[in-house]
Amino acid sequence: MFYHAKELQYNARVSAPDPRFARLLLEQFGGGNGELKAAMQYFTQAFSCKQPYPDKYDMLMDIATEEFSHLEIVGATIQMLLKGVSSELKQASDEDELSTLLDGKASKETYIHEAMVNPHFYDLTGGGPALTDSNGIPWTAAYVNANGDPTVDMRSNMAAESRAKIVYEYLMKYTDDPYVKDTLRFLMTREVAHFQMFEAALETIQPNFPPGILQSDPCHSNTYYNLSKGESVRGPWNQGISSKLGEEWQYIEDPLERVKETEGLTDLDPEGTSRTEESVREADQELSEIRSNEIENAIPDGIVQWSTY
Amino acid sequence: MFYHAKELQYNARVSAPDPRFARLLLEQFGGGNGELKAAMQYFTQAFSCKQPYPDKYDMLMDIATEEFSHLEIVGATIQMLLKGVSSELKQASDEDELSTLLDGKASKETYIHEAMVNPHFYDLTGGGPALTDSNGIPWTAAYVNANGDPTVDMRSNMAAESRAKIVYEYLMKYTDDPYVKDTLRFLMTREVAHFQMFEAALETIQPNFPPGILQSDPCHSNTYYNLSKGESVRGPWNQGISSKLGEEWQYIEDPLERVKETEGLTDLDPEGTSRTEESVREADQELSEIRSNEIENAIPDGIVQWSTY
Amino acid sequence: MFYHAKELQYNARVSAPDPRFARLLLEQFGGGNGELKAAMQYFTQAFSCKQPYPDKYDMLMDIATEEFSHLEIVGATIQMLLKGVSSELKQASDEDELSTLLDGKASKETYIHEAMVNPHFYDLTGGGPALTDSNGIPWTAAYVNANGDPTVDMRSNMAAESRAKIVYEYLMKYTDDPYVKDTLRFLMTREVAHFQMFEAALETIQPNFPPGILQSDPCHSNTYYNLSKGESVRGPWNQGISSKLGEEWQYIEDPLERVKETEGLTDLDPEGTSRTEESVREADQELSEIRSNEIENAIPDGIVQWSTY
Amino acid sequence: MFYHAKELQYNARVSAPDPRFARLLLEQFGGGNGELKAAMQYFTQAFSCKQPYPDKYDMLMDIATEEFSHLEIVGATIQMLLKGVSSELKQASDEDELSTLLDGKASKETYIHEAMVNPHFYDLTGGGPALTDSNGIPWTAAYVNANGDPTVDMRSNMAAESRAKIVYEYLMKYTDDPYVKDTLRFLMTREVAHFQMFEAALETIQPNFPPGILQSDPCHSNTYYNLSKGESVRGPWNQGISSKLGEEWQYIEDPLERVKETEGLTDLDPEGTSRTEESVREADQELSEIRSNEIENAIPDGIVQWSTY
Amino acid sequence: MFYHAKELQYNARVSAPDPRFARLLLEQFGGGNGELKAAMQYFTQAFSCKQPYPDKYDMLMDIATEEFSHLEIVGATIQMLLKGVSSELKQASDEDELSTLLDGKASKETYIHEAMVNPHFYDLTGGGPALTDSNGIPWTAAYVNANGDPTVDMRSNMAAESRAKIVYEYLMKYTDDPYVKDTLRFLMTREVAHFQMFEAALETIQPNFPPGILQSDPCHSNTYYNLSKGESVRGPWNQGISSKLGEEWQYIEDPLERVKETEGLTDLDPEGTSRTEESVREADQELSEIRSNEIENAIPDGIVQWSTY
Amino acid sequence: MFYHAKELQYNARVSAPDPRFARLLLEQFGGGNGELKAAMQYFTQAFSCKQPYPDKYDMLMDIATEEFSHLEIVGATIQMLLKGVSSELKQASDEDELSTLLDGKASKETYIHEAMVNPHFYDLTGGGPALTDSNGIPWTAAYVNANGDPTVDMRSNMAAESRAKIVYEYLMKYTDDPYVKDTLRFLMTREVAHFQMFEAALETIQPNFPPGILQSDPCHSNTYYNLSKGESVRGPWNQGISSKLGEEWQYIEDPLERVKETEGLTDLDPEGTSRTEESVREADQELSEIRSNEIENAIPDGIVQWSTY
Repeated sequence: MFYHAKELQYNARVSAPDPRFARLLLEQFGGGNGELKAAMQYFTQAFSCKQPYPDKYDMLMDIATEEFSHLEIVGATIQMLLKGVSSELKQASDEDELSTLLDGKASKETYIHEAMVNPHFYDLTGGGPALTDSNGIPWTAAYVNANGDPTVDMRSNMAAESRAKIVYEYLMKYTDDPYVKDTLRFLMTREVAHFQMFEAALETIQPNFPPGILQSDPCHSNTYYNLSKGESVRGPWNQGISSKLGEEWQYIEDPLERVKETEGLTDLDPEGTSRTEESVREADQELSEIRSNEIENAIPDGIVQWSTY
Repeated sequence: MFYHAKELQYNARVSAPDPRFARLLLEQFGGGNGELKAAMQYFTQAFSCKQPYPDKYDMLMDIATEEFSHLEIVGATIQMLLKGVSSELKQASDEDELSTLLDGKASKETYIHEAMVNPHFYDLTGGGPALTDSNGIPWTAAYVNANGDPTVDMRSNMAAESRAKIVYEYLMKYTDDPYVKDTLRFLMTREVAHFQMFEAALETIQPNFPPGILQSDPCHSNTYYNLSKGESVRGPWNQGISSKLGEEWQYIEDPLERVKETEGLTDLDPEGTSRTEESVREADQELSEIRSNEIENAIPDGIVQWSTY
Repeated sequence: MFYHAKELQYNARVSAPDPRFARLLLEQFGGGNGELKAAMQYFTQAFSCKQPYPDKYDMLMDIATEEFSHLEIVGATIQMLLKGVSSELKQASDEDELSTLLDGKASKETYIHEAMVNPHFYDLTGGGPALTDSNGIPWTAAYVNANGDPTVDMRSNMAAESRAKIVYEYLMKYTDDPYVKDTLRFLMTREVAHFQMFEAALETIQPNFPPGILQSDPCHSNTYYNLSKGESVRGPWNQGISSKLGEEWQYIEDPLERVKETEGLTDLDPEGTSRTEESVREADQELSEIRSNEIENAIPDGIVQWSTY
Repeated sequence: MFYHAKELQYNARVSAPDPRFARLLLEQFGGGNGELKAAMQYFTQAFSCKQPYPDKYDMLMDIATEEFSHLEIVGATIQMLLKGVSSELKQASDEDELSTLLDGKASKETYIHEAMVNPHFYDLTGGGPALTDSNGIPWTAAYVNANGDPTVDMRSNMAAESRAKIVYEYLMKYTDDPYVKDTLRFLMTREVAHFQMFEAALETIQPNFPPGILQSDPCHSNTYYNLSKGESVRGPWNQGISSKLGEEWQYIEDPLERVKETEGLTDLDPEGTSRTEESVREADQELSEIRSNEIENAIPDGIVQWSTY
Repeated sequence: MFYHAKELQYNARVSAPDPRFARLLLEQFGGGNGELKAAMQYFTQAFSCKQPYPDKYDMLMDIATEEFSHLEIVGATIQMLLKGVSSELKQASDEDELSTLLDGKASKETYIHEAMVNPHFYDLTGGGPALTDSNGIPWTAAYVNANGDPTVDMRSNMAAESRAKIVYEYLMKYTDDPYVKDTLRFLMTREVAHFQMFEAALETIQPNFPPGILQSDPCHSNTYYNLSKGESVRGPWNQGISSKLGEEWQYIEDPLERVKETEGLTDLDPEGTSRTEESVREADQELSEIRSNEIENAIPDGIVQWSTY
Repeated sequence: MFYHAKELQYNARVSAPDPRFARLLLEQFGGGNGELKAAMQYFTQAFSCKQPYPDKYDMLMDIATEEFSHLEIVGATIQMLLKGVSSELKQASDEDELSTLLDGKASKETYIHEAMVNPHFYDLTGGGPALTDSNGIPWTAAYVNANGDPTVDMRSNMAAESRAKIVYEYLMKYTDDPYVKDTLRFLMTREVAHFQMFEAALETIQPNFPPGILQSDPCHSNTYYNLSKGESVRGPWNQGISSKLGEEWQYIEDPLERVKETEGLTDLDPEGTSRTEESVREADQELSEIRSNEIENAIPDGIVQWSTY
């Protein structure tokens, strides 16, 4: 179960209203790489770890809970950046013809110009945050990756933290408020910390490549197809030894020719690798036995209960 | 900031795997009336209450936090209902031709039939919950209503709790597992409790009708247009005294005729009401002054800080 | 079946073009609380009422049809606010180099600046309304709530009308055009009228709380969990008597402690209520019999026909 | 403004419940080629025609209104195909342990199996239609095409009617209910009728090709790039005379070679056409003048009013 | 399989950065009528043509591949229009307090103002294109129409090309860069060329109306319902002979009356047509036999192989 | 520009129709981790690399083009798995009452049962693939990550390949067709190969951690907050030395206490690290200069041209 304490994890403050930066900051509230995405991703992943991998479960829930706490910091900052909007919206005075005469077009013009920044703040949320990105696109669970295998999920998380980090980096260009910058720097730094936590967790699982159980087909694991013609470049991604499997990259200069010669890549033998169909099958069997047992052993027969009291 | 305790708020248990009910239960995990929607709605609404209405803020955060805790209960139940899926997916044994011969078509057929229940459990999440509804539609923030005014937000919440309640009621028809039924009954009951909390909070705000500040135009607030011809029915919604404003309903038997006679409803006087343009303007001014002052007084000049330590 | 009369229900007029307000007004054309949402919600709800509750059917179709008529008013207003855009887009003269020389950069700059207001008006709809909200998000049926039970649906509708009302209230701040203000005031007022119609209809159904059939569990219907620590507030939502069930609120100061003591809330007895498991079961049975009979009796055996001619 | 008459345009009837066909039929209720899409497309297009092209406006509103009436027919049919679901959902009897004992697992199993057909009918709508397609995807305005130019919009409509027609044709394979078949045949036929209406309307606009105002560049209007290598086919789409502009197709056997030879297609002269840069510019100017004047002349200066009373 | 050549099909160039036009141009990158939509539509349609209609397959793949090449041109142009953004985002100098002092508020203000144009360019993509429309809405496959029948698909494609053409026409109003205009003119012209290719392909299929197999019901194929009351217009869409079936339009002045008289349109005979129920059934049978045989004959029994090598 | 060759990259074959597996396989056609996502992700990322990092551009376009080729393989396989559907849909024979009598209910029942597998195949696509996932959700660009910085993008790609790999692994459980298994094994293997290519490319950029330019704040880069109470676990992610920055993890046992003591984490000094504010600022400046120069130097002044011919 969750608890809430009214203190923010970080002491978010704002010097002065800034609806434009509030709009940009929505990217981290309801955007595809924002705090809600992170929180929901780790929270959702945690369910499948609970019983077989309680250590990963603990870590995922620690970080998910921190991300919810960051979501709160971001929302609080947006609310403070919009100071004044909600009380303005409560003022019916411009309903009075007199006041319209006095204020004239000018103040109305300012209102409307401000509203163009992000209409949702002015016509929908009444001056508060919305669960959208900086263009007003509603958050969608299509952003969330949870595939039930920690060798995949940890990698999804390292990438997610990388994206969240760069978005904070970009955002820092668009505010001069020293308090807001401090908050952004804190949040950006936590993505760097989390990245390393997920990486360390991934390393405790061995082997962790390829992700999942099944090895790859040695006929196709080290070939590089030169499909973009013109200035072709050779680099460690298509020559030398491959980073994880230690096979020798085979550069296919003319992919169409190769495809035609090999009956659509079905009539060929592995090259540049010591792996064989046989060795692959054995590795598949062995790892599959270990991993499926890990899960089965962790989950009791009969009635399942989530918590003990 | 948020905390998490590993104990679920309610002791969720499952007697036996049931992927079909797991699919249905997704409606309350990532569906439009589910726990995530509720949690995010109250959480988002809370930001605009924090300073001017700390009592509403406290209540919204109490309930939002409980809804996150319910989301966890629902997710845990789905995970337990899918027991066995994740370990099956780790078994590469059917990669072995021998084992295929032994098991035969039958077991494969069973696998595939089961996968049709909800492909996402089998091809995407590896046997865990997904942030979708029962048809696999990803959760979207389009479900969330937060309009920065408690006279609106409390009503949105009462409606949201009503919908969540009926969905749990419907779901209870589709499981016989006594543990699961207990969990559903607990969750359904909490919607009933929350409904009453929001209603009580709404009543502490006076006046709370119409929602917001502006009164309504007495020319149009008590007319009923008979636009669906055929068996027309008279009831307290189109005759007698209106529930909130206490005006007398005016039944417009032939709307097109009325529209033509009145230059498109612009050339008419209020009937069946004691409210006037004048009384409306005064009420608008008065309430607007009160409410905008409430907000302005609550928010300090200068630098804004969210929490005190 | 539907009919259309070319006269608008309200005499919508526009003094002068205003593409910026046209953008804001989209919120009520294709936004989440706009006229299309209202129309489709009541229209969709009406199907399940047709046979068992012809009075509610009549009311829902009257109001749905009015909302379609309001959608037309909003669309017409947007079209008039965009006067000039469509004829500009037909002018190929700036294709002529000569004219470019004469007009110079300035007019092009004005064009482009205007296009930033809402690109869709300029690059997609050719100067007319689009079924999006004010940020260009396409309308989605995810906005629509129809749950097949009038005790739920009427509440969804009261909340929907509240939200539509506040959005019109917010919008009125952003235009000075007296004709447009008149139209907005009419539309805003109708939401207030509809709210009261739905409320009156809800009151004709007794009992209407809790929504649906099933009563709630007396062990959990009156507890309040203090999950947001810090300045906690007591109010009628967590002390005294609950608004609908008349039970005494039980304030759980330390929820985690309570959960641990009660085996996850499974080992406890109702407090502060006279309802019992027995009384609940009886109420469930009784109401369920009444309501399912209402529906069954209304729908003839054998072939079903929707209309009679 | 809209009116509603309680009689359906077509006498929809259903012989017996069929939740599976109800699911399929959703494709025409809330699917991408369904009745709501059609209604909203013509309704939205109509706004820009109102003043300059009142004849097209009349036709678009006639057909849009008919499509709303068809939406109603489809919804009514789905509701009738789901007969029995809503009353079942009101029966709390299985809450009674006794009844569970009597009915046993079997009836529950039937319930659940049925619910897998489309969970939304059972856990969300309470046995009525939902604004989704046959897989439960919510309707989105992304389906709607309205581009403010009748030479484009009429073509969008002819294509939309074609798609709606084929979906009805496919659906007719999946029901044996003679009443339902009759309804589908009526609806399918109306798409055929509407297609011809839009085609006739398009023909009254001359010239109508290319759509819009601007002619095309004679250097690029009649070239065909052979980009998919292998069995290449010659047909009237890449040899002979082009259908609308009457130019001679130029078949580019080796597109990459051509691109390299012509500085990326910038250094070439028109072939197989009598059109020139000059003739194009003149045609652009002439048509642009006609069309922008049509619009400007139709829309009065000063205040704009939509309807006259 | 696909190949890529680094040369663009058209020599796209940009004179100077223009983030505002870059935003507008997104409409053709990730918008509903843009190049990705076109490419994916023809590519998806091609699968069902591969075996029965290899000539249509060749054409669809030729054009789909060209549309991918146009997507690349549009993306490249957007990237060039955003020149300077990505290097700015890499400059941390404003992190240095000194530099902030020197540059002052002004440059920051410019940054932020620019970011309002399209936040995604500045806070998400780091100065490159995004797969969204000009309002930042992510591309969705809901835009794609592929219905497995070339008499439908070709019509969908003609409409799609019409819409893409008008969007390019609109866009040309918003740039003065002669290089960009040249690129737009090329792309616009190709839509005109493709339209004619699809039309020619449609004409090679006979009969192609109505789309699909099933003829329409002669009772309903030539009626026009006057559902929008007021200034009603008669034109070739509701009087005279229908364009495709050559039937005489029957104008139903009072649709409700007609519906009531005919038991909901079930009790009537065809008028103004020589087609009969009998002739329709025969045509259905005949065409159905031809078309289903075409497909069956094209697809071999037993194992299916897509390509030969 | 792109080319297409009619030969598939891999010789995809299918032994027998299998609409259920066709449904599952959609996950890799239009799903969130499928081939279209991969293709569009690398293609979109490539634009920002073109000028400053031509080696990465070449690699991204090589792999993007291969992913398009894989999308084609998946689509072709789905089409072959649906063999028979399209010709069935063309058979109008069941329109004939006679044939209905002969075939009886049984064959209709089979039709309908099959249609429940995935309605879209039967009521929408006419027996071909759709750009959706296995639950029919339309593909959305929300799946695509492209952030304009290769240290982020390469990590996004490694994660994307991991997810695509596990989805193929899961899918292999659900077919026994040896040809289909071969195709899946090829496609799965290519994800393993691509992972290593992206990893190698990432390693050629130094430093590549943290992603982007800005270093992290040494006060917050090595703290671990124990936010999920209960069985807390210590591991290399919260004790010892952090994987990338080589700092010593600081385990915050009681986060709320820490927050209160440090004024919301603002009043604290770095611990367990040798990095300082000063060293961070210097590193930021240095790297920022290098990276922004790389980009600026690569992009010529004045007119920009994408390709040379």
